Amino acid sequence: MEQVIRVDPEIHRVAPGTAFSLAAVDSAFAPDGLDKDAAQEMHKQNIRQVSVLQERLFAEGKQALLVVLQAMDTGGKDSTIRAVTRGVNPQGVRVYGFKAPSKNELARDYLWRVHHQVPRKGRIGIFNRSHYEDVLIVRVHGWAPPEVIEQRYAHINDFERLLTDTGTRVVKIMLHISKEYQLSRLRRRLKRPDKHWKFNPDDLKERRRWPDYMDAFENAIRRCSTADAPWYVVPAENRWYRNVVISQLLVDTLTDMNPAFPPPSFDPTEFTPESIQ
Amino acid sequence: MEQVIRVDPEIHRVAPGTAFSLAAVDSAFAPDGLDKDAAQEMHKQNIRQVSVLQERLFAEGKQALLVVLQAMDTGGKDSTIRAVTRGVNPQGVRVYGFKAPSKNELARDYLWRVHHQVPRKGRIGIFNRSHYEDVLIVRVHGWAPPEVIEQRYAHINDFERLLTDTGTRVVKIMLHISKEYQLSRLRRRLKRPDKHWKFNPDDLKERRRWPDYMDAFENAIRRCSTADAPWYVVPAENRWYRNVVISQLLVDTLTDMNPAFPPPSFDPTEFTPESIQ
Repeated sequence: MEQVIRVDPEIHRVAPGTAFSLAAVDSAFAPDGLDKDAAQEMHKQNIRQVSVLQERLFAEGKQALLVVLQAMDTGGKDSTIRAVTRGVNPQGVRVYGFKAPSKNELARDYLWRVHHQVPRKGRIGIFNRSHYEDVLIVRVHGWAPPEVIEQRYAHINDFERLLTDTGTRVVKIMLHISKEYQLSRLRRRLKRPDKHWKFNPDDLKERRRWPDYMDAFENAIRRCSTADAPWYVVPAENRWYRNVVISQLLVDTLTDMNPAFPPPSFDPTEFTPESIQ
Repeated sequence: MEQVIRVDPEIHRVAPGTAFSLAAVDSAFAPDGLDKDAAQEMHKQNIRQVSVLQERLFAEGKQALLVVLQAMDTGGKDSTIRAVTRGVNPQGVRVYGFKAPSKNELARDYLWRVHHQVPRKGRIGIFNRSHYEDVLIVRVHGWAPPEVIEQRYAHINDFERLLTDTGTRVVKIMLHISKEYQLSRLRRRLKRPDKHWKFNPDDLKERRRWPDYMDAFENAIRRCSTADAPWYVVPAENRWYRNVVISQLLVDTLTDMNPAFPPPSFDPTEFTPESIQ
């Protein structure tokens, strides 16, 4: 079976220093000629490759990969995480979900709790929400003045540079959906009693601030998509496209990191299958 | 398709206060009439059920499940973890592997670092090795005197009672293999260069202490298999049996914990699919 269509995550990468416009991104995008079945098959193959590369990353123990996921409510963060980690050794992947900061966390700078959760060498860390909330929800609600938000873009770039300089690859993904799509997802939650626990009336209040959120996202992405720690804005309404493009991004990133099995800690001529007992 | 053979984890449970003998356990056991294909199909079904129950556990957020895995080298801890968590939401499962304690950890009591890693409510925590190393390798090497080891069984039972009294179910599993089986696995590692990083000549030194390890396991299991935090000694040489019996144990345990979706945080007559916008 020939794969005519290549899925290319790089088309969703936001180049540093460009006037990126979120409104110009079609949240329902999928490449012409790519159908769901083919995409799902490619996704499966990608996941197998992630699994292989992850084992090498783990064995090597010298580099880490941090994936930051942000989205509006119902954007699909949870299901994305599930889809792209399926079958990958759970010991090599750690997912951390950031909630509202605790009293203990608020007693330190806002990056303190985030730094604490960065992946160990050899691991893949996935942040479900992240330090970006400190320039998203915080900005939208005016919980910090504009000059503080302004400082934070620099802090964040500095922090991510520390990580990349010391062996952690950082990839940031916004799952992009439209306001109409969110409405359909919220309605779906209300239709299904087993999803009621996920519905919170406060979500509707946040929803009314949609344009402010889009502004905040646009600014964060413009200011913090760097050469070393890029932002990808992934159209997320076609879940099968979202999955395959993100698994492809993981494959490409891990391939580029090129983890290698470490040399054996023994002399292979001394210890052979026949010699041991 | 009728399932004639039921896989029953309870046959591997060590009853408290019995004179349990490890030598009496057939490490290559599989039930008569259960074949590999049927076991794998049952395992798949179990995993789907674990996934469903885990979502409820997460949504409920009131209970946790801690699975402790211990085994001799090559016993299959890693591949077991992979098999039983496949497809389960990685945000709801956290695997923690205990290595030799750090200086920082040694500066506290031996349960300090373990306590730190217990699962949050709503989560499944899996320990790859655990506090039991403090009565296994430590005992075998005489790193602590017998009277200290003796104390530890009581500490461990007390610690696990604290967990079970406060909402964490504790299940402990020994993956049981024979010394001969281990040899075949070590030889396999030496045959495959991509597995060399897993081979450590020190493993051969530990291997020579096999009878001491079996003694240490037997004692730990006898002393610490309690009604609330039982030990299961699972025959681990047939991996397909090992997988299905452990996934069945997870299903049975989670079913018994009976997690429930929380009531909605809103009035479902006020917020309906039609009313929101």
